Amino acid sequence: MNTLGHLYRLTTFGESHGVSIGGIIDGCPAGVKIDFDFIQAELDRRKPGQSSITTQRNEWDKVEFLSGIFEGKTTGSSIGFIIQNKDQKSNDYNHLKDTFRPSHGDFTYDKKYGIRDYRGGGRYSARETANWIVGGAIAKQILKDVRITAYVSSVGSVDCNKDYNMLDLGVVEQNIVRCPDPIVAKSMIDYIEKVKSEGDSVGGIVSCVVQNMEVGLGEPIFDKLSSRLAKYMMTINASKGFEIGNGFEASRLKGSQNNDVLESGNKTVSNRSGGIQAGISNGMDLFFRVGFKPASTLMKDQDSFDNKGNKVVVEGKGRHDPCVVPRAVPVVEAMAAMALVDAHFLSKNSKI
Amino acid sequence: MNTLGHLYRLTTFGESHGVSIGGIIDGCPAGVKIDFDFIQAELDRRKPGQSSITTQRNEWDKVEFLSGIFEGKTTGSSIGFIIQNKDQKSNDYNHLKDTFRPSHGDFTYDKKYGIRDYRGGGRYSARETANWIVGGAIAKQILKDVRITAYVSSVGSVDCNKDYNMLDLGVVEQNIVRCPDPIVAKSMIDYIEKVKSEGDSVGGIVSCVVQNMEVGLGEPIFDKLSSRLAKYMMTINASKGFEIGNGFEASRLKGSQNNDVLESGNKTVSNRSGGIQAGISNGMDLFFRVGFKPASTLMKDQDSFDNKGNKVVVEGKGRHDPCVVPRAVPVVEAMAAMALVDAHFLSKNSKI
Amino acid sequence: MNTLGHLYRLTTFGESHGVSIGGIIDGCPAGVKIDFDFIQAELDRRKPGQSSITTQRNEWDKVEFLSGIFEGKTTGSSIGFIIQNKDQKSNDYNHLKDTFRPSHGDFTYDKKYGIRDYRGGGRYSARETANWIVGGAIAKQILKDVRITAYVSSVGSVDCNKDYNMLDLGVVEQNIVRCPDPIVAKSMIDYIEKVKSEGDSVGGIVSCVVQNMEVGLGEPIFDKLSSRLAKYMMTINASKGFEIGNGFEASRLKGSQNNDVLESGNKTVSNRSGGIQAGISNGMDLFFRVGFKPASTLMKDQDSFDNKGNKVVVEGKGRHDPCVVPRAVPVVEAMAAMALVDAHFLSKNSKI
Amino acid sequence: MNTLGHLYRLTTFGESHGVSIGGIIDGCPAGVKIDFDFIQAELDRRKPGQSSITTQRNEWDKVEFLSGIFEGKTTGSSIGFIIQNKDQKSNDYNHLKDTFRPSHGDFTYDKKYGIRDYRGGGRYSARETANWIVGGAIAKQILKDVRITAYVSSVGSVDCNKDYNMLDLGVVEQNIVRCPDPIVAKSMIDYIEKVKSEGDSVGGIVSCVVQNMEVGLGEPIFDKLSSRLAKYMMTINASKGFEIGNGFEASRLKGSQNNDVLESGNKTVSNRSGGIQAGISNGMDLFFRVGFKPASTLMKDQDSFDNKGNKVVVEGKGRHDPCVVPRAVPVVEAMAAMALVDAHFLSKNSKI
Repeated sequence: MNTLGHLYRLTTFGESHGVSIGGIIDGCPAGVKIDFDFIQAELDRRKPGQSSITTQRNEWDKVEFLSGIFEGKTTGSSIGFIIQNKDQKSNDYNHLKDTFRPSHGDFTYDKKYGIRDYRGGGRYSARETANWIVGGAIAKQILKDVRITAYVSSVGSVDCNKDYNMLDLGVVEQNIVRCPDPIVAKSMIDYIEKVKSEGDSVGGIVSCVVQNMEVGLGEPIFDKLSSRLAKYMMTINASKGFEIGNGFEASRLKGSQNNDVLESGNKTVSNRSGGIQAGISNGMDLFFRVGFKPASTLMKDQDSFDNKGNKVVVEGKGRHDPCVVPRAVPVVEAMAAMALVDAHFLSKNSKI
Repeated sequence: MNTLGHLYRLTTFGESHGVSIGGIIDGCPAGVKIDFDFIQAELDRRKPGQSSITTQRNEWDKVEFLSGIFEGKTTGSSIGFIIQNKDQKSNDYNHLKDTFRPSHGDFTYDKKYGIRDYRGGGRYSARETANWIVGGAIAKQILKDVRITAYVSSVGSVDCNKDYNMLDLGVVEQNIVRCPDPIVAKSMIDYIEKVKSEGDSVGGIVSCVVQNMEVGLGEPIFDKLSSRLAKYMMTINASKGFEIGNGFEASRLKGSQNNDVLESGNKTVSNRSGGIQAGISNGMDLFFRVGFKPASTLMKDQDSFDNKGNKVVVEGKGRHDPCVVPRAVPVVEAMAAMALVDAHFLSKNSKI
Repeated sequence: MNTLGHLYRLTTFGESHGVSIGGIIDGCPAGVKIDFDFIQAELDRRKPGQSSITTQRNEWDKVEFLSGIFEGKTTGSSIGFIIQNKDQKSNDYNHLKDTFRPSHGDFTYDKKYGIRDYRGGGRYSARETANWIVGGAIAKQILKDVRITAYVSSVGSVDCNKDYNMLDLGVVEQNIVRCPDPIVAKSMIDYIEKVKSEGDSVGGIVSCVVQNMEVGLGEPIFDKLSSRLAKYMMTINASKGFEIGNGFEASRLKGSQNNDVLESGNKTVSNRSGGIQAGISNGMDLFFRVGFKPASTLMKDQDSFDNKGNKVVVEGKGRHDPCVVPRAVPVVEAMAAMALVDAHFLSKNSKI
Repeated sequence: MNTLGHLYRLTTFGESHGVSIGGIIDGCPAGVKIDFDFIQAELDRRKPGQSSITTQRNEWDKVEFLSGIFEGKTTGSSIGFIIQNKDQKSNDYNHLKDTFRPSHGDFTYDKKYGIRDYRGGGRYSARETANWIVGGAIAKQILKDVRITAYVSSVGSVDCNKDYNMLDLGVVEQNIVRCPDPIVAKSMIDYIEKVKSEGDSVGGIVSCVVQNMEVGLGEPIFDKLSSRLAKYMMTINASKGFEIGNGFEASRLKGSQNNDVLESGNKTVSNRSGGIQAGISNGMDLFFRVGFKPASTLMKDQDSFDNKGNKVVVEGKGRHDPCVVPRAVPVVEAMAAMALVDAHFLSKNSKI
């Protein structure tokens, strides 16, 4: 189950402290001109060590393409790629060999597989998300006119509550927390710095807007665009919740308050549905939110147990993100791009 | 994309006003003794007309099995079933032939397919969920010891906020709104009656608890138990949000507040993760919530457009649920059961 | 694994002596005008009792569509259908309850599943092929200009060796054995009658030609058009071999004898490859052959064992085909049509 | 469609003249002890340049594993691997840039994708089969007790007709043509040398025996073990035909001649079915044959056309196999191993 997608498929491999991570993109049509600088720029948005509020691990995430691209264009063949692992300090993890860190995958992987690459999270390390960035960056180049913008809309209790239409989505990348409201961004950064200084971590929410949407994406019954997005987003490490449009807020409203009334043959006055009706895109902007828990790894000691059932103390050391959401922004976008390309390809056979 | 699941697969068909709906369950092992009364009882929990707060349509949801069961036991062959459509008043829908109802699938299906069975929602009618109940009722019989209990935890702003451990999950079926807190249930029912009398509808939230969970369900990377549940739940008509464990609330917390610390070799003190770590079940109870919007069909007139771009008024008539969540309870359970059986079968090859 | 296809998918159910058989066609685009008479005519080509050389069971194979078609056209929704089982004489099979018939599925199903619907072959009865005819008949209506013609090219040692270009494929249906050479057809019929009079059965070969082929069907690496056709054909009951183009004969030749040289920019002088190069159609006619074993059920007594390990004699009774190939002709065509529609849909995303 | 298998899945990438080829094995259980020497030995059986009758290209096929194996054992995570391309003489192919070689994929890839990596066959080069060897070598280590032996049973018209029970399968690797009959092997080698000296190529047949088979592998209806094997085998470059058991020969027989009569509760006297009844293994040896055409690339000039529709002469140069079947032997085994492991995993849910 290391493959995502039905027609645009990404299959991945790799542990954080192995030789390399990588993947195979399958189903990319021939003739797509590849902008390698763009792909690298997307990886740089995700890479560790990019600012004071991210982990100081310095993984130079340089992707190497091994196939499927010839003279700058895709050939229709599967696209193999790898990203070398560098700067792994595996010794940082020796003390965790037999330990189950709280709220980590250590316990569950150990029970499921009976064997575990304990170095840095192994397969369940968020380093895997670099692979998704590559798949998403090519997906974005296929989608072209579609504009996908994710941003941080809350860090802990610091919220950016404004409707995205009130925000300048063009400035998201201008601050290190990736919040389009510069004043709120400042508060978020301050809060993350404070949490970091406590050796603690904090959660947050990423919102995502997709503009220039095509009508008709999403397949009934079991591949609705909404359930597909939920699946893709809940795949991201540390995600705990997903909502589309006004989401859980809709559960509090009456139908007369919540319905999106058409204001013309193909546009609605409001967009509480978030661009999807009955599972299919209606051409309005997609809007959804993904909630992330605080990273489980703290720079504090925590009580736990080892795999023999002995009490242990998990020391707070290593290099970790105090807040994952700024680096989750490009990951949310990449996942959205892959979900949409796949839905787009599937929709080609809707009508004869 | 009318198939759900990888090893335990449900494929369905049917429109609300066609001859029948039905499906094929594939991947059910041989030797499962089928309790037909249980399946029918599950269907009765979902059926319309069961109380004053549900639609008065009287669909007698009687399932007929056509294959795959021999002398009361499954044979390992695919299980075909149909549920006849009765009491369809298709004429109720003639006025909607060319009309796009607000926040319905009328517009999106019309654009996607260029043709539409306008009678009662056609394929996107929630009548489809009866098929899922059948698939879920058999899944429950495979899971046996696992106990799946969904309940209504909010209707509009009427909340049942108590931790599920403080509630008696055994009484969910004792009131028509399916809330285990009898006092809150009363308020919910009153509120639905009020909304109904206004010709309006209201949303709500369904919570779900799974007890006696197996450790090790869920496949990394792209079939985590959490993303799988998200996909299955967001498949349900009118769902707008999904969260696992403390969900979006986790995004507000610090790691030191949110982490689930082990209290023994295999049990955690808290269960904020909702029974899943790194995508894999840890043996604690699963806990998740699904937010539903208010039904878009109102007993009030609404402005809209038809497929020629003309303004029209959608009349409020027909027989509809003022609040979908009480009937969504068994649907959430059925979807959870199918998700878990499939994950269980997949997990059999985790170790050599 | 009761589903066939990636984008045009047929999922089926049903045992020969159950209530009905049937299936769900998923992935049929909206807007296909359905010719119901054509579908029934295809079923009639397969049905038992159609001539003196087929079984005298009189299964009236009348298909009922339950969904997915509205006012004569497909809607893009899944198409459910059933075919009632009639004239089952289940008592004909009581003597086989515990018996493993030679070269039948009795033994393997019993071992695999531990339970078995012994009446008439249950799930492994060739009655299932009626479902495929329905899926294929709709596939043919999607393909329209493509002309798929299967015919019997041998029965036992009676061969129709002529190149199909030397035969009038329009006359296949004019004799009961479905061989386009009327003189050879006569010999085949005589031979089947003789074998039948002996209470025996005989095998044969079905050849298939697809004209007006599109260039570019087939996906590398693991979904070549040739491997896809092999899979679909070897799915048919009693099939034992598949070859494309000159097939096994190619293994005897030198490259200089076997290569298909282009005679223009897009046509080859010879067509030994059978219309496929490197797994992808080249626009020349597809040509392939499927070998079928003689039916295992004889009208003679045969020695065998029962499921307790006791020696038994299997009596030769019931109503069975002395030679399956005449009725396999429409089945081969249906399978080819489904394989090609699916490949056609997949190929839409080959280029940007 | 660069993924093979449902539970044991191999996804591959790579062109013959790219940086590297490689793949991802997904679904391998945790805890499999990996014998790296065995994997390399399997690759060496396939590699070019191993004898006077294979191509003199010297591709040193050294596999590097990148993930999924920890301290010598599989972890249950996906296993990434690459094989560097060395000794590519891409300039050998410059003259083919715009040319469609007879019976090659040049024409079909060009039409399907509109772009083509012309160097050495690109994606459709048989170099891809090295990836399958890796997937197969790990599959063999999972299957352990199952013994898969392929061998060359004909080259051109030089046949090894003996029943495999009359042959010593242990000596297959003792001659360069991989035929277990040393006398016939000598004739085959002589014939290949002769054909090679003419600048020509020749086809052949590979037979495969699987001993120690498990009963119950294969899923009805659309994933029969026979159709699955057909699909896997017809995936191999240059394969033109597949038959199971006595295959096409069965089509010439009567049922009374062809049926496999049980000689005890679980063994048949004959094994004309090749170990599969109704699509499911019966525990007898699997036996099947795969027919290969002669390689299309000759060391002779051939007439053809280029992509502008001009007549050209394809020069006979480069380094190529005069007969592909000796090197196809380990490929057939690898494909069989992957097919069987996948079927084995699927069969675990046959009974409750």
